[in-house]
Amino acid sequence: MNENPTGGLRRGEFGWFDAGRRARIGIPEAVFAAGKGDAALVEMIEFALEGEGPVLVTRLDPERWGLIADRADWLAFPPIAEGEPYVTLVARPLPRTGPKRVAILAAGSSDRVMALEARAVLTALGVDSHLVLDCGVSALKRTLVALDETSDAEVYIVLAGFEGALATVVAASVAQPVIGVPTSVGYGVARGGETAMASMLASCSQGLMVMGIDNGFGAACAALRIVGTRST
Amino acid sequence: MNENPTGGLRRGEFGWFDAGRRARIGIPEAVFAAGKGDAALVEMIEFALEGEGPVLVTRLDPERWGLIADRADWLAFPPIAEGEPYVTLVARPLPRTGPKRVAILAAGSSDRVMALEARAVLTALGVDSHLVLDCGVSALKRTLVALDETSDAEVYIVLAGFEGALATVVAASVAQPVIGVPTSVGYGVARGGETAMASMLASCSQGLMVMGIDNGFGAACAALRIVGTRST
Amino acid sequence: MNENPTGGLRRGEFGWFDAGRRARIGIPEAVFAAGKGDAALVEMIEFALEGEGPVLVTRLDPERWGLIADRADWLAFPPIAEGEPYVTLVARPLPRTGPKRVAILAAGSSDRVMALEARAVLTALGVDSHLVLDCGVSALKRTLVALDETSDAEVYIVLAGFEGALATVVAASVAQPVIGVPTSVGYGVARGGETAMASMLASCSQGLMVMGIDNGFGAACAALRIVGTRST
Amino acid sequence: MNENPTGGLRRGEFGWFDAGRRARIGIPEAVFAAGKGDAALVEMIEFALEGEGPVLVTRLDPERWGLIADRADWLAFPPIAEGEPYVTLVARPLPRTGPKRVAILAAGSSDRVMALEARAVLTALGVDSHLVLDCGVSALKRTLVALDETSDAEVYIVLAGFEGALATVVAASVAQPVIGVPTSVGYGVARGGETAMASMLASCSQGLMVMGIDNGFGAACAALRIVGTRST
Amino acid sequence: MNENPTGGLRRGEFGWFDAGRRARIGIPEAVFAAGKGDAALVEMIEFALEGEGPVLVTRLDPERWGLIADRADWLAFPPIAEGEPYVTLVARPLPRTGPKRVAILAAGSSDRVMALEARAVLTALGVDSHLVLDCGVSALKRTLVALDETSDAEVYIVLAGFEGALATVVAASVAQPVIGVPTSVGYGVARGGETAMASMLASCSQGLMVMGIDNGFGAACAALRIVGTRST
Amino acid sequence: MNENPTGGLRRGEFGWFDAGRRARIGIPEAVFAAGKGDAALVEMIEFALEGEGPVLVTRLDPERWGLIADRADWLAFPPIAEGEPYVTLVARPLPRTGPKRVAILAAGSSDRVMALEARAVLTALGVDSHLVLDCGVSALKRTLVALDETSDAEVYIVLAGFEGALATVVAASVAQPVIGVPTSVGYGVARGGETAMASMLASCSQGLMVMGIDNGFGAACAALRIVGTRST
Amino acid sequence: MNENPTGGLRRGEFGWFDAGRRARIGIPEAVFAAGKGDAALVEMIEFALEGEGPVLVTRLDPERWGLIADRADWLAFPPIAEGEPYVTLVARPLPRTGPKRVAILAAGSSDRVMALEARAVLTALGVDSHLVLDCGVSALKRTLVALDETSDAEVYIVLAGFEGALATVVAASVAQPVIGVPTSVGYGVARGGETAMASMLASCSQGLMVMGIDNGFGAACAALRIVGTRST
Amino acid sequence: MNENPTGGLRRGEFGWFDAGRRARIGIPEAVFAAGKGDAALVEMIEFALEGEGPVLVTRLDPERWGLIADRADWLAFPPIAEGEPYVTLVARPLPRTGPKRVAILAAGSSDRVMALEARAVLTALGVDSHLVLDCGVSALKRTLVALDETSDAEVYIVLAGFEGALATVVAASVAQPVIGVPTSVGYGVARGGETAMASMLASCSQGLMVMGIDNGFGAACAALRIVGTRST
Repeated sequence: MNENPTGGLRRGEFGWFDAGRRARIGIPEAVFAAGKGDAALVEMIEFALEGEGPVLVTRLDPERWGLIADRADWLAFPPIAEGEPYVTLVARPLPRTGPKRVAILAAGSSDRVMALEARAVLTALGVDSHLVLDCGVSALKRTLVALDETSDAEVYIVLAGFEGALATVVAASVAQPVIGVPTSVGYGVARGGETAMASMLASCSQGLMVMGIDNGFGAACAALRIVGTRST
Repeated sequence: MNENPTGGLRRGEFGWFDAGRRARIGIPEAVFAAGKGDAALVEMIEFALEGEGPVLVTRLDPERWGLIADRADWLAFPPIAEGEPYVTLVARPLPRTGPKRVAILAAGSSDRVMALEARAVLTALGVDSHLVLDCGVSALKRTLVALDETSDAEVYIVLAGFEGALATVVAASVAQPVIGVPTSVGYGVARGGETAMASMLASCSQGLMVMGIDNGFGAACAALRIVGTRST
Repeated sequence: MNENPTGGLRRGEFGWFDAGRRARIGIPEAVFAAGKGDAALVEMIEFALEGEGPVLVTRLDPERWGLIADRADWLAFPPIAEGEPYVTLVARPLPRTGPKRVAILAAGSSDRVMALEARAVLTALGVDSHLVLDCGVSALKRTLVALDETSDAEVYIVLAGFEGALATVVAASVAQPVIGVPTSVGYGVARGGETAMASMLASCSQGLMVMGIDNGFGAACAALRIVGTRST
Repeated sequence: MNENPTGGLRRGEFGWFDAGRRARIGIPEAVFAAGKGDAALVEMIEFALEGEGPVLVTRLDPERWGLIADRADWLAFPPIAEGEPYVTLVARPLPRTGPKRVAILAAGSSDRVMALEARAVLTALGVDSHLVLDCGVSALKRTLVALDETSDAEVYIVLAGFEGALATVVAASVAQPVIGVPTSVGYGVARGGETAMASMLASCSQGLMVMGIDNGFGAACAALRIVGTRST
Repeated sequence: MNENPTGGLRRGEFGWFDAGRRARIGIPEAVFAAGKGDAALVEMIEFALEGEGPVLVTRLDPERWGLIADRADWLAFPPIAEGEPYVTLVARPLPRTGPKRVAILAAGSSDRVMALEARAVLTALGVDSHLVLDCGVSALKRTLVALDETSDAEVYIVLAGFEGALATVVAASVAQPVIGVPTSVGYGVARGGETAMASMLASCSQGLMVMGIDNGFGAACAALRIVGTRST
Repeated sequence: MNENPTGGLRRGEFGWFDAGRRARIGIPEAVFAAGKGDAALVEMIEFALEGEGPVLVTRLDPERWGLIADRADWLAFPPIAEGEPYVTLVARPLPRTGPKRVAILAAGSSDRVMALEARAVLTALGVDSHLVLDCGVSALKRTLVALDETSDAEVYIVLAGFEGALATVVAASVAQPVIGVPTSVGYGVARGGETAMASMLASCSQGLMVMGIDNGFGAACAALRIVGTRST
Repeated sequence: MNENPTGGLRRGEFGWFDAGRRARIGIPEAVFAAGKGDAALVEMIEFALEGEGPVLVTRLDPERWGLIADRADWLAFPPIAEGEPYVTLVARPLPRTGPKRVAILAAGSSDRVMALEARAVLTALGVDSHLVLDCGVSALKRTLVALDETSDAEVYIVLAGFEGALATVVAASVAQPVIGVPTSVGYGVARGGETAMASMLASCSQGLMVMGIDNGFGAACAALRIVGTRST
Repeated sequence: MNENPTGGLRRGEFGWFDAGRRARIGIPEAVFAAGKGDAALVEMIEFALEGEGPVLVTRLDPERWGLIADRADWLAFPPIAEGEPYVTLVARPLPRTGPKRVAILAAGSSDRVMALEARAVLTALGVDSHLVLDCGVSALKRTLVALDETSDAEVYIVLAGFEGALATVVAASVAQPVIGVPTSVGYGVARGGETAMASMLASCSQGLMVMGIDNGFGAACAALRIVGTRST
C-alpha cells in the first residue's frame, strides 16, 4: 500500500480511497459494502478511518457486523439488532448544526430502511432531520399532517414505492427543494421501483428532482449540497 | 351481403357487424374508423344504421367527415369544426335517464378529446355526465373543487397523462367506483401514456380500476356496465 | 402512541393507521404484512383491532402466523395449514348480505391464492362470492359452464396468467362489469404477469377494467365499490 | 453484373439475388421493396424475372408502381388502385393445386393488408386460401362461423392486433397447425403489435406457433413449408 | 367430484381436466405440475389416468417424484436420478409410428432439459425424434453435420439461447417446417431468453415459426399438429 | 368565466389557471402550449396576464406566434425568427437579482433549445444564468474550461443526450447542487433520452439529481427552489 | 470567436471545435450535422476547415447540400444526387496507405447508407476498404463468398438489421477483429435495431464487438484505432 | 464417443468440443461450466485436455472445484479459496509474449471478478495484462493515474457498472482500441448492467466498442483478435 502522489488518494490492494472527496464536493467517500469481499471491505474502512472527519459505510449486510464492529464507535441506521436487509454505519459524525433542516417523508412504513440511509448520511455531516414514516396519499390527511409538521425544513426528501404519488403532492404544496426517491416497495407492476421512478420523473409538479431507485444515500448527498456542506 | 343465420351478425365484403352486441352486453358495437378504408367504413356504418338503437363511430379523422355526414343526424364530440385529431360520432342516442350519473375528471386541458370520447358513448346510451377539465393535483384545490361538484356521481372516470396521480388521489377520496384512463399527454418519460398507466395500476389507493392508454371509449363502456345498461 | 386530532388517524412508532378509511371509501385499511418487521406488523394489527368493523391482513407469510394467531378470531384464505406463499386473514367479518353477488373466475388452478385474496376481502365486507377455478379458454367448454353457473352475479372478477385471454372472452359474453386481474402465473414470455396485463388492457372487448398484477385485493375493493359498500 | 460460379447466386451492383432458394427451401427469394432505392429495386426484380417460376415483390409503396408495372404481368394484393400502405405483387404464379388448403382468419378488418400479403405468397406457389376477415372474439359467434367454414383447411394462419386472443381460441379449437401473426393494429397499450405478439407466445393453447409483427409473408412461407412445396 | 354433463370435462376440487382435448386437437391435456400444490397435482393426475391414451406431466420438480411414482409406469425425461430443474413424465405412450419424424437440434448442451421436454411429448404420441445437442453456429461444421444427419425429418425443432442464430441458419438451409424455441440459457443481455426470442421472430429466414421461451412442450405440440396426430 | 371562491383559481371554458401557485411554491404556473387548441391557449394566457408578476409560456410552436404576439411584451428563447421546434416566452420578468447564480452546461450544441427553456424560466424569476454550450466529455478540456468559468455558481443545471456522462463528471467535480437533464439528442440506442436518463439516475457521483427527458423547464424550477424564490 | 488558450479548442457562438482530437485519439472531430441549425453547422465546418488534415461531416440531410457545397472539395458517400436519408462528406482525405485493410460486410442492400458512412470515415483517414453488400445468412453461400473475397482484411465491420445473425457467423469464422453494427433495417419486432443489437451483444461467437444502432461512423473509428492511425 | 470425420470436432454424449477453433479464430473453445451437469462438464474438460495448447474453463462455481481439481495443473482467477461467485480456470497457458500489452481498467472494486475473467483468458494465450481496479470517474484523479500507468498498452478493456461513464472518458482520452464491458454491479436503475451497456453503446466518444454485460471473457477474446493471436 502506498500514498498516491497526486494527493488525496489512498491506494490499496483492492482499490483506492478518495480521501480528497470531502474537500472537493463537501461529502466524504462512503464505503459501499454490498459488492466487496471481506478483505476489500476492511481495507477500505481502514483507509476511511485513517483520515479525519466523518466516516460512512453503506449497504452493510448485518451478518458482517462482527467484521468491523470494533474498528470504530459506530452509529447504526437502523440498529444492528433488528435484522434489516442492510444497515448504514456512521463514525465520527460532525456536531449538530442546529434545528431540523431536512424533512424526510416516507409514503409507507416499508420505505423505512431507505429513509434511515438518508438520515444516517445527514447525521454524519451534522445535519439534523425530521423523519415521518407512512404518510402516503391513500390517506391524504396523513400527508397534510406531515407537511404541517415539517413546514420549516430547508429541503424535502420524499420516498415512495408503488405509484410514487406522494412526491408529486409534496412538490405541488411546498416552495422548498423536493428530492424524490422511488423505492422498490411494492409488487407486480410496481416493477421494483421503476413505476414510482417514472412517475416522479414525469410529475406535473414543477421542479421535482429525482434520484435512482432506493437511493437514500444519494438523496442525502443532494440535500447536503443544497444546505451547503462546505461552510459547516 | 347476406344476413348470417346464427343471428345478430351482418356480414359484408370487409367484415361483420355484431348487431347482437347490445342485447348481449348492453352496449352496441362501435364502428372503429381509424384503420378502415373508405369502402369498409361506409359498409360498417350502413350495417350499424340498419338496425335500431344508438350508433357510435369512434376515432374518425375529421377530414373524412364528408364521407358520412349525410347518412344520419350525427352528434360530434368534439364538434367537427374544431379540427381535433379525431372525433366520436353519435346517432340516435337513447333519451337521457336522469341526473348526472357519471363524473368525468381530466387532469389537464389536453386530455379533452379522450374525455369527450367517453362522454359521447355515455350520451349515446342516455347516461348524463359531468365533465371537469384541468383539475390535476399540481393545484390540489382544483381537485377538491372538482370532487365537491361531482360528489353525487355513481361512477368516476379519471383521465390523466404525465404521472397520472389524479386517479390515485380521487380513489383515495371517494367510495364510488373509479375508472382510471391513462392518456398519452406529456413528453419524454411520460412515454406516450405508459408511465401514467403503470402509475394507476400500481396505485396505493384501494380498488382503482384501469383502462388502456387513451381508451375513453372503454372507460365509458365500463361505466355503463356499472350503472346498468340492460335495465334502461 | 397518540390519537391524531384531525380524526380517524392512529399514529404509532412505525406508521399510521387510517381508521377513517371505511367511512370514507367503504373499505377499511388492510394491514399489508409483506414489507413490515414484526414490531411494525403487531402495532398495525393492534391499531386495526382497536376500532370496530372488519379487519384485514394481507400478504402474510404463513411462517409468521404464530405472531398474531391469538390476537383475534381469524379466518384464513387459504387455510394456514396449506403452506401457501401468503395468506389473507379476516377478523370480525360483516354478516352475509345475501346470495352470491360477485363471480370470481380463475383461468388456472395456480391462480388460486390470488383468487382467495379477493374472496377474503369480499367475505370481510359481507359480500358472498362464487369461485370457479381452472376455467380458462384452452377448453372453451369450461369457460361456458363457468359463465352459465355465475350468470346472476352482479360483478365478475377474472384472474388469468399466461396470455390472459379469459378476461377478454368473459367481457365479450356478459353485460355485467368485468374486472381483470393479470396474474404472475406462467414462465418465460409470460413475464411475471406483464403479458397478461397488457393483453387485458388492450382487449378488444368493450369496457374490460384491469388491476395490477396479482392484485386480488384491489379487484375485491373495486367490486365492493361497485356493489355498494356504503349502504351495507 | 456477373453470374457467381458457386451456383444460384446472381450478383449485381446493389446486392445478390438468391436464385437457388426455391430449390433449397421450396420458396423463391422475394424482393423486399421497402428499403431499396429505385435502381436497386429494378435490378433485383430483373434478376428475379431472369429465372423461371413465381416472382414475388413485397412491401411495395403503391406510389412506386409505375416503376415496375410493365415488367411483368403482375397480380397485386390488394389491387393497386386502393391506395393501401403497401402491396404485394405476384408474377408467374404456379397453377392452383386443388381445394382451399390454407385458412386465413383475421380478427379485424384492419388486418386486411397483412392477410393479403399472406394470400399473395400462397397464390404465387399455387396454394389456394380461404380468407375470413373480422372474426375476432369480441363476437365469439363470428369466430365459430369462421372455424366452421374452414374446418377442412390443412393449416391456419390467424392474424390479430390488440390482445391477439383470436389465435389462442383458434388453437384451442382445432387440430391443425396454427400460425399466429400479431399485427400492429391498435393504439396505446397495443404497442404496435408487441402486446398481441407476447400474448400469442404465452398462449395457454398447446402448440400455437408465432411469427413476427405484421409478418404475413413469413406466415405464408411457414404454411408452405407445412403443406409441402417441394412436391408441387 | 362429478362428471360434467357437457362431455369430456372431469371436474374436481382444484380444477377441471379436459379429457376431450385429444379428440379435439390431437394432443391430450398435460398436467402442468409447477404451480400446483400436492393435492391439486394428485387430483389432476388421477383424472388424467382415469381415461385412455397417453398421459403427460410437465415441469415436475424431481423432489416431488415420490408423490406420484407409484401411480403409473412412468418414463422420465431426463431420468429422475439426475437432479435436473424439472422433468417431464410420460405414461401409456402410443406405439412408435415409424422412423424418426422430428429432428430436435439444440444449440448448446445447456438447452438439454427443454429439448427433452419436447422429446417426451413426441414419445407420448408415438412420434420418434432425432435429438442433436450442442450444434450451434459458433462451430458451423457442427451445424452442417447435424443438418446432414437429420435431412429426412419431417419437421425441425431448433432450441437456442444467447442470440439464437442457429434457428435462422437452419431455416435458411432446409425446406421443412422449422419451429424455433428460444431458451433462457445465457446471462446478461441474453435477458432470460428474450434476446433469442426476438432474434428468431425477426429472422431474415423465410417462414421460421417461434414458440415462447423454454417452451419445448409447445414446440412438440406444434410438430404433432404438423405431422398429423389425428390419423395415428 | 368566473372566479373560484376558494381563492387563487381562475376558471374558464377549457381549464383553470392556478393564480396562487407563485405564492405557494415560489414559481407561477406556466402555460404549456403544446397540447392546447387556439382558444384554450388564448384563454390561459389571458388568465395569466390578468394577475401580476412574471408570465411564462412554454413549448410554443413558432408558427402560432401570431396568435399571441400582441398580447404582451414578450422575450422569446430562442428568438422567434430562428424556426426552432419550440420557444419559451417570458413577459413581465422580475428584475435581475445579482450576479450569475445558476450555471447551465450543455454537452452538445443540439441541447440548446432545452437549455434556453431553462434560461427563460430563470430570467422570468430574476435569476441570472451562465450558459455554456457544447462542453461534453468527448473533449474533457472543454468540460474543465466550462467548470472553471462557472465555479462561483450556486447551482448547476447539466443537459446531455447520448450517454449523459457530462452530468456524472460535473457532479464528481463540484460541491454545489447539480441537476441533470437528460435530452432526446442522439439516435438509435440513445432511445430518445432514456439512455442518458438512466445513466444519470445510476450515476456513481454522489447526489446528482435528475429531471425528466428534455425538461429544462423543470430543471429551472428546481434551481429556483434551491436559490430561494420566496425571498425575492 | 476566439481561440481557447488551453490549446486545440476553437470556440464559437454555438459550440467548440476540438481541433486537438486527431492528435489525441488519431481521428478528427466530425461535424455531426443532424441536430444543428444552419448557422451552427456553418460555424463548425469553418472551424474544421481552418486546420489541416481530413474533414468529416456526418448525417447531412442532402437538402442542405447547397449550404456547404462550395466550401471545400467534398467527396460524398453516397453521392448527393441519390436522395439518400443522409450523406457523409469528406474533404482533404489522407492519401491511401495500401491494399484494402478493412472489410465492410452488410447483410442487406438496405444497410448501404450506414456502410457508406463507415467507408467515408476510413477514406478520410487514408484506409482502403472492401465493401460487400447483401451477403446475409439467409443465403449462406453469399456469406461464404464474401468471407472468401475479404480474407486478407485486417478488421471486419459487419452491418445487419433484423436478427443480425451475420455478425455471429462472421465472428465464428475468422480470426480478425470483428465489429458488429446493428442497423435499424427491418420492421415490427426488429424494433428499430434493438433486436439485432441484443443479438450481437449476446452472440455465442467469441469476441464479437458491438457498436450502437446505425453507428457506421463509430465502427470506422474503432477500426481506425485497431489498424493504427497514429502511425499513418 | 467418436472422432468426427469432418475434422476438429470431438463428439460426446452431451455435446461436441470444437477442437479446431483455435486454428480457425486464434482462441480455443472455452468450457462454459455454468449450465452443465457434472457428467457433461467432465466430458467437455476431458475433450479439451485431449488436444494441445491452452485450456479454459469459465463460470465455474467454486463448489464444483473438487470435481476437476486433479485433472490438470490449473491456474484459478480469482484463487479458489476466496469463495467468489465464479472462477475462471487456465491450464497449459502459452508462454508470455512480452511486456503488458492489454490494459484492464475497472471502475469499482466490485468489477473484479469480471476483470479477472478477462485476465485469465489473456494469460492462457500468453498475453500479459495490466489490471487497475477502482479507477472510476467519481474521482477523476484515479482515472488519470490509471491512464498514465497504462499508456503503452496496445488495447484497453474497460469494465464499469452503474452509469458506465469510465468507458466514455477513456475512449475520449486515448488513441488505442477501447473495449467496454458493462457490468451488473449496482442496484435499482443500474438494471443489472443494462444502463451501463446502453450508456457505452450511445457514447459520444468516437469508436468505443462494447461487449455484453459481465462478458469479460468476450472482451479478452476481442483483445486477442486485435493483438493478433495467430502469429503467437
